[in-house]
Amino acid sequence: MQRMLEAQPVLVDVLPAGEALDGMTPDTVLVAGPVMAPGEYHGPQRDAIRYAAVHEGLAPDPDQAWERLVAGKIKLGHTLDYGCVGSTAGVHTFSTPVYRVEDPATGVRAHCGMYEFGTRRGLSLGVYDDEVRDRLHRLEEEVAPAIGAAVRAAGGIPLLPMMSRALRMGDELHSRTLAAAHVLARTLMAPLADLGHPHRRTAIEYLTTIDPLFLRLSMAAATVIVTSGHGVPGSTVVTGMVMNCRRFHVRLAGSDRWFAAPLPEPRGRFFPGFSVDDVVWTGGESCMTECAGLGGMAQAAAPALLDYHDGDFAGLIRHNLGLYSIVRTEHPDLVIPALGFRGVPFGIDAELVADTGLTPLIDVGYAGIGVGQVGAGSVRAPLACFTEALAAGAATGADATGA
Amino acid sequence: MQRMLEAQPVLVDVLPAGEALDGMTPDTVLVAGPVMAPGEYHGPQRDAIRYAAVHEGLAPDPDQAWERLVAGKIKLGHTLDYGCVGSTAGVHTFSTPVYRVEDPATGVRAHCGMYEFGTRRGLSLGVYDDEVRDRLHRLEEEVAPAIGAAVRAAGGIPLLPMMSRALRMGDELHSRTLAAAHVLARTLMAPLADLGHPHRRTAIEYLTTIDPLFLRLSMAAATVIVTSGHGVPGSTVVTGMVMNCRRFHVRLAGSDRWFAAPLPEPRGRFFPGFSVDDVVWTGGESCMTECAGLGGMAQAAAPALLDYHDGDFAGLIRHNLGLYSIVRTEHPDLVIPALGFRGVPFGIDAELVADTGLTPLIDVGYAGIGVGQVGAGSVRAPLACFTEALAAGAATGADATGA
Repeated sequence: MQRMLEAQPVLVDVLPAGEALDGMTPDTVLVAGPVMAPGEYHGPQRDAIRYAAVHEGLAPDPDQAWERLVAGKIKLGHTLDYGCVGSTAGVHTFSTPVYRVEDPATGVRAHCGMYEFGTRRGLSLGVYDDEVRDRLHRLEEEVAPAIGAAVRAAGGIPLLPMMSRALRMGDELHSRTLAAAHVLARTLMAPLADLGHPHRRTAIEYLTTIDPLFLRLSMAAATVIVTSGHGVPGSTVVTGMVMNCRRFHVRLAGSDRWFAAPLPEPRGRFFPGFSVDDVVWTGGESCMTECAGLGGMAQAAAPALLDYHDGDFAGLIRHNLGLYSIVRTEHPDLVIPALGFRGVPFGIDAELVADTGLTPLIDVGYAGIGVGQVGAGSVRAPLACFTEALAAGAATGADATGA
Repeated sequence: MQRMLEAQPVLVDVLPAGEALDGMTPDTVLVAGPVMAPGEYHGPQRDAIRYAAVHEGLAPDPDQAWERLVAGKIKLGHTLDYGCVGSTAGVHTFSTPVYRVEDPATGVRAHCGMYEFGTRRGLSLGVYDDEVRDRLHRLEEEVAPAIGAAVRAAGGIPLLPMMSRALRMGDELHSRTLAAAHVLARTLMAPLADLGHPHRRTAIEYLTTIDPLFLRLSMAAATVIVTSGHGVPGSTVVTGMVMNCRRFHVRLAGSDRWFAAPLPEPRGRFFPGFSVDDVVWTGGESCMTECAGLGGMAQAAAPALLDYHDGDFAGLIRHNLGLYSIVRTEHPDLVIPALGFRGVPFGIDAELVADTGLTPLIDVGYAGIGVGQVGAGSVRAPLACFTEALAAGAATGADATGA
């Protein structure tokens, strides 16, 4: 817990995944959630994998991409095994630009791909066409190099103070990252202007029009924070919550093993023309933010979330207060003004979850097939994966499968 | 009311007061609140007047400035009579750079000086030394021309959408304008970068370090909104609340006359080393924002205001809900997420104030003598000026002294 509380995530660079990630190879496609047999993938996550392989040049078309994958010529990897974290489908290939976030004191790192340039339709939601491809190229060739240069020129951007400020400006830093996007843009304004980078203009267009762009930094920062506490034998603190398109998974600090449970029922509001029937789970590791006390754990910071909720703000506050019963502490720098500047509920403990039967609240976006995002809302994590992790002795490390 | 609801304030330029304001002369010092006899001025507002005259070159030192004022060689004017609105002491001289905000559909305009570059110590709070002077020169010679050029290059900046967004990001747009500052900076990022103005760098420094800078735009926008509804015989809607260092004043839409009452008791929290005993009322017209439903009328938008309040967020919400009993309507575009996206209480009516005995809640900053800001909080407008305005038949225009 101490290491998690002391973690100081700093954005230090933007660079291609092939350069940034240990063990990354040109024929690997990283995905959100533990890797499954190819036949288990379906819907937007399957499409995202096929299209990512095509975009990377690993196959001429989506069908041949899938054949090569089944034949073992394209490999799947779980993002978190590569020091990366994946939004929705979570696809990253060799040339995907990623943010590098690290704690300079400990060297703990996490990477995350950049929010796509454009609309709700994008590769990470399983959509790919000429427009998506061209936008990805602008991201790779123009936005990422210019922002990377500005970040390096600034000597790195400490993210915790930015996140702390954003919580005071109506973000919960998962579904709502609008304030943080503004704080980031304002912070990069001087370095970008001074730099005179040939792609400065595109980078500014990106920073000033893509409202949810900070989500990926929030995810990487949360992953640095949470990973800092991972690997403590006997600890039942939750150090990971991730989804693939079939199952929800948790891991505890005492073990590297993921414990699965069925995906939750989608609840929320849907964009015009869409309903809950359009939702297909796509995977996603943005609930790493909830492991750091953000997102669904901090809804009382973000009254504008009511856009995607039934009920009123008193309800958000009531739910938020309840979540303090499943955590070990509160984060001193990440505070919620509407709760009298109380720190976010921090350090979810599987034992407390099992004792109370209350599971983490998670803010989510929903995707449909071939259409991108269709709505947003929040769900409760399934109880079974927490109780199974405890039953399997995950906390003692008795079942440890890895480091 | 309809004209106030339809007003669309747009930032169109930044230019010297002497150029911007009809009737402004080189020997005039504008002040917040109706003009008094020189002997009535005291404390920071008196100091601000003396120092403003020195800064403008109207006298070699503060004592001679006051002599010239008493002798009628320096004139005092009330900002609002010049289409201007004044924060705290409200001093504006011929070369003071002002924002020009106007509604293109109606031509209704308001101007406001720029938030000073630097710390809590500044001319508008009655402080002047070499450092304050140098910062004012940077504002006049570098920041104002560069921001003015960027605003013109952008073809004007509509402020209502920006204010609407800021209310969803934890501002109430009087004491708290942090989100709006970020939205403005982000909006000016591309025009400033493209422009290549010689003082671009200073302008960016200003936009990225002066957190309360949007206050002046909020005041000018509110003044455009409120002024749009002024001049309706028989109307008891409040179209102005302003202070000088002696009295609080209101005016109603039916008359140009200001009605005075004693200044309220300061309540709030004070910076380290200061207490309520250090507070000296300095004047100020930032409560024009409350006339537009912002500031103290919209505290439920800004939970971080609790920094300067006793009590909890439930209290802010309770007070905010109470204020709907003294207004005629709600603003459709300026909404408060924590109240389920209800519009801010809009169109304060003196009759409703008198009927209920409930007066507008006003967010304020406090100044001390020679030290700048010492704290912040909120106060209730005094009841007497509303009842006197009604008793005097202000609404009927029977007592009209002006247009």
